[in-house]
Amino acid sequence: MSESIDPVSADVETLGEPKVDSPLPFQHFVPHQKKVTMEIPQELHQKEGEEPEFYTFEESGPKESIYFDPSKTKCAIVTCGGLCPGINDVIRAIVMEAYYQYGVSSILGIRFGLQGFIPKYKHEVWELTPASVSNIHEFGGTVLGSSRGHQSSEEIVEALERLNVNVLFLVGGDGSMKAAAAVAQEVRRRNMKISVMGIPKTIDNDIPFISRSFGFDTAVSKAIEAIRCAHTEATGAYHGIGMVKLMGRESGFIAAEASLSLKEVNFVLIPEEPFELEGDYGFLNRLRERLVSRGHAVIVVAEGSGQDLCAKELGTEREQVTDASGNPVLGDICELLQDKIKGYFKSRNMDLTLKFIDPSYIIRSVPANSSDRVYCGFLGQNAVHAAMAGKTNMVVSKLQDRYVDLPLDLVTQRERRKLDITSNYWRAVLESTGQPHSLRNS
Amino acid sequence: MSESIDPVSADVETLGEPKVDSPLPFQHFVPHQKKVTMEIPQELHQKEGEEPEFYTFEESGPKESIYFDPSKTKCAIVTCGGLCPGINDVIRAIVMEAYYQYGVSSILGIRFGLQGFIPKYKHEVWELTPASVSNIHEFGGTVLGSSRGHQSSEEIVEALERLNVNVLFLVGGDGSMKAAAAVAQEVRRRNMKISVMGIPKTIDNDIPFISRSFGFDTAVSKAIEAIRCAHTEATGAYHGIGMVKLMGRESGFIAAEASLSLKEVNFVLIPEEPFELEGDYGFLNRLRERLVSRGHAVIVVAEGSGQDLCAKELGTEREQVTDASGNPVLGDICELLQDKIKGYFKSRNMDLTLKFIDPSYIIRSVPANSSDRVYCGFLGQNAVHAAMAGKTNMVVSKLQDRYVDLPLDLVTQRERRKLDITSNYWRAVLESTGQPHSLRNS
Amino acid sequence: MSESIDPVSADVETLGEPKVDSPLPFQHFVPHQKKVTMEIPQELHQKEGEEPEFYTFEESGPKESIYFDPSKTKCAIVTCGGLCPGINDVIRAIVMEAYYQYGVSSILGIRFGLQGFIPKYKHEVWELTPASVSNIHEFGGTVLGSSRGHQSSEEIVEALERLNVNVLFLVGGDGSMKAAAAVAQEVRRRNMKISVMGIPKTIDNDIPFISRSFGFDTAVSKAIEAIRCAHTEATGAYHGIGMVKLMGRESGFIAAEASLSLKEVNFVLIPEEPFELEGDYGFLNRLRERLVSRGHAVIVVAEGSGQDLCAKELGTEREQVTDASGNPVLGDICELLQDKIKGYFKSRNMDLTLKFIDPSYIIRSVPANSSDRVYCGFLGQNAVHAAMAGKTNMVVSKLQDRYVDLPLDLVTQRERRKLDITSNYWRAVLESTGQPHSLRNS
Amino acid sequence: MSESIDPVSADVETLGEPKVDSPLPFQHFVPHQKKVTMEIPQELHQKEGEEPEFYTFEESGPKESIYFDPSKTKCAIVTCGGLCPGINDVIRAIVMEAYYQYGVSSILGIRFGLQGFIPKYKHEVWELTPASVSNIHEFGGTVLGSSRGHQSSEEIVEALERLNVNVLFLVGGDGSMKAAAAVAQEVRRRNMKISVMGIPKTIDNDIPFISRSFGFDTAVSKAIEAIRCAHTEATGAYHGIGMVKLMGRESGFIAAEASLSLKEVNFVLIPEEPFELEGDYGFLNRLRERLVSRGHAVIVVAEGSGQDLCAKELGTEREQVTDASGNPVLGDICELLQDKIKGYFKSRNMDLTLKFIDPSYIIRSVPANSSDRVYCGFLGQNAVHAAMAGKTNMVVSKLQDRYVDLPLDLVTQRERRKLDITSNYWRAVLESTGQPHSLRNS
Repeated sequence: MSESIDPVSADVETLGEPKVDSPLPFQHFVPHQKKVTMEIPQELHQKEGEEPEFYTFEESGPKESIYFDPSKTKCAIVTCGGLCPGINDVIRAIVMEAYYQYGVSSILGIRFGLQGFIPKYKHEVWELTPASVSNIHEFGGTVLGSSRGHQSSEEIVEALERLNVNVLFLVGGDGSMKAAAAVAQEVRRRNMKISVMGIPKTIDNDIPFISRSFGFDTAVSKAIEAIRCAHTEATGAYHGIGMVKLMGRESGFIAAEASLSLKEVNFVLIPEEPFELEGDYGFLNRLRERLVSRGHAVIVVAEGSGQDLCAKELGTEREQVTDASGNPVLGDICELLQDKIKGYFKSRNMDLTLKFIDPSYIIRSVPANSSDRVYCGFLGQNAVHAAMAGKTNMVVSKLQDRYVDLPLDLVTQRERRKLDITSNYWRAVLESTGQPHSLRNS
Repeated sequence: MSESIDPVSADVETLGEPKVDSPLPFQHFVPHQKKVTMEIPQELHQKEGEEPEFYTFEESGPKESIYFDPSKTKCAIVTCGGLCPGINDVIRAIVMEAYYQYGVSSILGIRFGLQGFIPKYKHEVWELTPASVSNIHEFGGTVLGSSRGHQSSEEIVEALERLNVNVLFLVGGDGSMKAAAAVAQEVRRRNMKISVMGIPKTIDNDIPFISRSFGFDTAVSKAIEAIRCAHTEATGAYHGIGMVKLMGRESGFIAAEASLSLKEVNFVLIPEEPFELEGDYGFLNRLRERLVSRGHAVIVVAEGSGQDLCAKELGTEREQVTDASGNPVLGDICELLQDKIKGYFKSRNMDLTLKFIDPSYIIRSVPANSSDRVYCGFLGQNAVHAAMAGKTNMVVSKLQDRYVDLPLDLVTQRERRKLDITSNYWRAVLESTGQPHSLRNS
Repeated sequence: MSESIDPVSADVETLGEPKVDSPLPFQHFVPHQKKVTMEIPQELHQKEGEEPEFYTFEESGPKESIYFDPSKTKCAIVTCGGLCPGINDVIRAIVMEAYYQYGVSSILGIRFGLQGFIPKYKHEVWELTPASVSNIHEFGGTVLGSSRGHQSSEEIVEALERLNVNVLFLVGGDGSMKAAAAVAQEVRRRNMKISVMGIPKTIDNDIPFISRSFGFDTAVSKAIEAIRCAHTEATGAYHGIGMVKLMGRESGFIAAEASLSLKEVNFVLIPEEPFELEGDYGFLNRLRERLVSRGHAVIVVAEGSGQDLCAKELGTEREQVTDASGNPVLGDICELLQDKIKGYFKSRNMDLTLKFIDPSYIIRSVPANSSDRVYCGFLGQNAVHAAMAGKTNMVVSKLQDRYVDLPLDLVTQRERRKLDITSNYWRAVLESTGQPHSLRNS
Repeated sequence: MSESIDPVSADVETLGEPKVDSPLPFQHFVPHQKKVTMEIPQELHQKEGEEPEFYTFEESGPKESIYFDPSKTKCAIVTCGGLCPGINDVIRAIVMEAYYQYGVSSILGIRFGLQGFIPKYKHEVWELTPASVSNIHEFGGTVLGSSRGHQSSEEIVEALERLNVNVLFLVGGDGSMKAAAAVAQEVRRRNMKISVMGIPKTIDNDIPFISRSFGFDTAVSKAIEAIRCAHTEATGAYHGIGMVKLMGRESGFIAAEASLSLKEVNFVLIPEEPFELEGDYGFLNRLRERLVSRGHAVIVVAEGSGQDLCAKELGTEREQVTDASGNPVLGDICELLQDKIKGYFKSRNMDLTLKFIDPSYIIRSVPANSSDRVYCGFLGQNAVHAAMAGKTNMVVSKLQDRYVDLPLDLVTQRERRKLDITSNYWRAVLESTGQPHSLRNS
């Protein structure tokens, strides 16, 4: 059977022709033109329409000829936004690869996110060496520190120029990837030759064209520890309810995955699937049914779920509030749920013991687990390979089990990924929890 | 050197003379009169005065002649109050010992605490067997369920009579031990021959004559995971503060022990050591100094600390509020601290990133670690030995590394244990944190 | 850009036309003809030639019309070969899916592998229910028990007939998948309508068309605990060497992945990359250089590496020895290495402390970690979906992040997967360890 | 009741009168004469006779007046013998206490055990600072390195003199404590004023007057992971046997404690309780009975058990072999057991699957768990307090939950602790395993 496909070609920008011989002692380089073709489901590419599409990506890896002369190359690493397991692994991998394999002359560590470029903050700049990073992967967080919020891309590029930086590695979330794109644009505008490499970070797993963001696996493994405790508390009391709040502002990936992993969850509430509280098919009655039939219930709530209910309850003015990164401050759905549950059962004279657990930073501040460590190692190495080859304005990605280089705009100019509630994945979650396919009355 | 001491003799009540041969195949029994003498520091005996005292206790263990005929003996187990790691281990040990070693005819599991004895709640009663408990120690919580609150000791004894129970094992906290004493008294009043065995449970480690309550070690090991995350968050931001709330209503043992274990804590606030917020020597200024000199800070707060500050802030009327067990509802010191810290630094134009972690039930709902497992095994076994020997109105205890049988009133009629802030132990905590010896201005 | 590809169509055998309405309450079924196209690298498809190829696979998931009438369907599960993390998860998922979602009438658990079908062994057959499997995923191993070795497919099919089994789920390794194919063939020969579903299990990760076998991730995470200890021992002594033996008879995936995860490994020896002991470029001299320059060394050895050296050392007659499953008994490369290392350093008068760790079953007997749990859940569910739809003679697979149904012969008639030593993956391992690209003199 | 006791007074040697004011900011010092009286069971004091005895010990802790002027005091730390969880914690605690609390001028780290004092080895000497030790407790082993074997106490004292060391902290086992005593004697002979502080280390928990040696708790918690795997393997096969070898040359504490913790062990073999293989009451027949009745068995073997059987099997000449520390090389009881078991069952035509696990260094090379961390912190601090107060020729100990200073000869001149097989403790082990009280025919 022969099939004709028409793949979208996702090519990466380069600074110029690679003319330097790679110093890597390895013989099996990845040809510059090496591409891989993939069928990408809608959930990952986030374009209109429900169908998968074919894309052709540049394969990550070391190139035989490179753009930068390592002995004259200076790198900088900056980490932005909230913590996520594995950031230190990425930093370590970049330093080790750049230093030991390519022999670059210097690697700077920018402190406290993009603030570190801005003179008024007076943060120091660190020189990173193999010795200084050799053990950092044993610890969570980022040794460089981080910060939230926008900084001027002009000032950032001026700092890069002042520091003689040729390659900027930027580890950060959605907003930071947009900042990376702005920096790349400013670099281009000034006709400079600085490679801008994004390493996308999101504990919510909501970045398009990335099958699973780094740290997600670790976060889920910690989340289930909290859920297990909630289950213990729920079964330890008559009509016991254990409620766990998990990260997930606009997508419920952590909540869903944790529920698939720990089979004791009975309700998962996620932003992608609105629900009602009242009515026969609403959440409260379903919860009552569960308690009556089984005596206890475990509820996992993604922090961004039920925002319509919060807004209705609290009025709409708080909608406007945003945090330092410009993200809207979410309504506290768990507080609302606890109030409503208690009121509902009290009005029915039913006893109830409700235990609420908010593991919060516990699931994002831990060191990466072994698979995230391997993953972060590849992200760091591939970022160095791509940068040394002169690629820029891109991010490294693991997509359907393969490492590819992606143009930055693929990541920044599409919607955030959301969990597809028509997918086998979400169906499996529903089967695991046993909750109804809808918690709405119509 | 000869020394004359005058030990307090802590003898345990018995139901009558032991005339039945023990069915245990073992040859090395503990003589009925076997006692151990110990010098008990004030912190443990909780009597007036600061000096240690000598006590003589009955040593735990199997007796050659016992009081109950196992083939006619029926036991019941009930678990009360909040969860604590190791309850299932105690249940399992009681069942295994009673069933396999003594061959008792039946062991009942009373569901949902003392409620399980009261007809109106209609909780079922379980028959516990080796098969039904063989794996329960792999899970946290209590398979029997628990509840809080007072129940009539008359109704409880009537239930024991109705169920033909000869031995009641009661796992519970301070209030439950008082309930056990009331049950024992009611049994005596009715001239019945029921042994009442307390297995004291407190995650706060605040029971006198118990060096370390079961589950405490496990709880501390979980608490440090939360603190480690707080440290990661604190170091991951400019002027980062990580604050962790830990259990400890009237005593700061978990907070103190966790800080000794994880060296990254900079301030520990406990109920036993009041502190001030304002002033040069107050907490806020000390925190500021720490941030200025080291850039970040980790604060561990026992939930019961600073209650005078909460009362002052919130007025006194809420003092009256108590929960189902009759414990006063605590003021939210962590909320107060967060408000005050943010206000203090804002008024000084200092940037700040404060991350608050409340691990709450996560540290009490986990399965027991290996040392608590061994400990709980001995508690359960020794409770069975003592009960079969006809002892009653007592608790089992591990005291200075030895298992002893204690009269119930030793535990119920003294003050709760508090951390001795003049001790080497607290001094070691202060050295570990580096915090000033006082956070008060006078 | 338009591209014409000529994918291999990997279609799955079916028992007949699906005419029964699925009982699943879900609306989003996977159409029977739904296929996904993938570019498969040589390492995964294991065909001659080094190039990737395109394949079209049937997507896993529930079908709207199914073949078997659930109320009349009886299933059987059997687990074969060595243990692997996640087997219990697969069993649990099959039972829960078949019972709760499809409502099949009965699910049998065959005990101790294929022996369980053979009358002479007299193993009982279990009835599996949701209650009996609800907690098994918390434990490693297989509740059904397992065994190695060949059994007659005629006898197996006779047992299936005797037990009225319509669907056989067989969890097992390479040999067991061949047994599954033989059973399917025998079923076909007899014109019976029994679905044979393979769930491929291999801790060595060496099955073609499966990106990562279930349990592999967990095994690696345990392996690194052993390696970390070896590193501690190595650094704790002058000229300290820590050597760890890991699974991997013909492929070094666990050894390689563990070394990528734990950065402290200095030498990885795998079956795919032969090495020499003597000579300037041989292992012993490289090890000496490492000790002289850094003072210690950590060596990870896949059990199947260096078999040519073992054969040479021990003569060739032992080549013939095979175990119950027909696998050749490997030469003990770690013993050989220890002898050679000690002799080499002794002859050079160099002090040495060599600590050898063989974690053996510790890395395969543990419960699945959270990501393997999710994975195994999908494998079990998808096996049930496929079987109920009438598919047979197939295996479920996760391939490049998607779940697909594969014809059994894809898995059984290709070579076992081997690590591609010309790949970026192996290069990354070499970079991580810092070992030379070859330990051979020519 | 008044009781007259005649306690043994265990006084510690001092270098001279303490005349320097302690720099500690703390007000609650421990008076120089502060003693605690304890009733010590025979198992702990290891004197002839089975009865407990009373002892009076000096309480550990900071003294108001001290002997050494901190600003002129130089310390040295050396770690000897095999690894044990918590050594780094002890090192860290000594450095932090000496540096931050006392302000000593310098702390040297001697590398690779006593070898580090001997010029011919040419090991460097490290300067230890708070910065260099701040994270070491997160890692197992010893940062200083260790070695086995005897070194001349004259050479050691000469090195101390050459390095101007006033206080030597020696972390080590039985042999090292004897070396410490020899060093203290040589110091006295030369009329020098050097404090010699022992911190006893033994993973076997076999040191008299120490209730539980540091690291033991951690080791047990790791040992049970191996046993759990053995249990999984045993239940995963027909007539499955899981055998685990644990440390314990002359005492079975780890094996016994691990079996108390993990309830799945069916036979524990320890050095203190000899056993026979053959005969109705011998091990092999008991094992057969267990397999017949329950289908599987888990056996935990302390490495030093059954040495009489090994000697008989192998002849006596190997008795003479000793390792670098002078300890006799043990016969391989596990190999013997495996051979005998296989032969026994083969001769009875019984199928058998035997899986052997030797976790070896995995249980001793891990970082200390939270309770060992706290413990090691106190040991280090108390060693510094005692040394600064001018005490010498002593060890720090935790005995029946209190920290006391012990004369070195209490520890070095008594027998190694053995598990008392007439104790409640061993009885509890037997009850937990269900094994017969004796595996001997007479």
